[in-house]
Amino acid sequence: MNQPVLQLIGIVHSDIVNLVDTPKFYSESDRVGTLEILPEFTDALDGIAPGQTIVVLFWLHKASRDVLKVYPRGDRSRGLRGVFSTRSPVRPNPIALSELEVCSIDGNLIAVKGLDMLDQTPIVDIKKKID
Amino acid sequence: MNQPVLQLIGIVHSDIVNLVDTPKFYSESDRVGTLEILPEFTDALDGIAPGQTIVVLFWLHKASRDVLKVYPRGDRSRGLRGVFSTRSPVRPNPIALSELEVCSIDGNLIAVKGLDMLDQTPIVDIKKKID
Repeated sequence: MNQPVLQLIGIVHSDIVNLVDTPKFYSESDRVGTLEILPEFTDALDGIAPGQTIVVLFWLHKASRDVLKVYPRGDRSRGLRGVFSTRSPVRPNPIALSELEVCSIDGNLIAVKGLDMLDQTPIVDIKKKID
Repeated sequence: MNQPVLQLIGIVHSDIVNLVDTPKFYSESDRVGTLEILPEFTDALDGIAPGQTIVVLFWLHKASRDVLKVYPRGDRSRGLRGVFSTRSPVRPNPIALSELEVCSIDGNLIAVKGLDMLDQTPIVDIKKKID
């Protein structure tokens, strides 16, 4: 089959503007920000409500795609590991997954808490969380 | 930015060959199968071991990309919902996410349990699960 082409559905707005300042995991973050979804996808947000946890997929546009082994969390004492056994942003398809708390939603703008993404990171999908 | 192009990293082998027979969620499945990863990505699997739960992203090559509202689980009594508030395969970027148990791993072949994917579904990413 042909290689699939992603359609970006939105973009992150946050005050996280450099990698050093970016939380490594959503589970360790209390940072807030806004998911701005493109207006043509607003109907797809119907049913998302404050208080819910949503699963958000991002496209890490700055991540390398040709590295197969990394030091997890940059810790060289732990040795190299395959990227598929880690949460490293570096991977053949640099898609990141965060579980975020919905603080409020207004049209195509979702205010969220738990962000671990740089400002301006593209968004590719939102899903209901399965408990 | 340009629309990202995905690189398929592998393919599912299972005895699930039609949609009617496909479990709706990994959390409701005890089906087994094999993730065949392309040989050039075998190094990226280093660190994955039997007994672990891995997060696997699939590309749902048969899913519609231009439907924004669905009846969750096909249940019309619940009304239409935006696809981003569901786990429907139908969405602008039909990426599915399953948490699968690793039964065994042999080179580029990962035997897994909990499959909710059709045979021959392309794989786009594998991640460590965050508890």
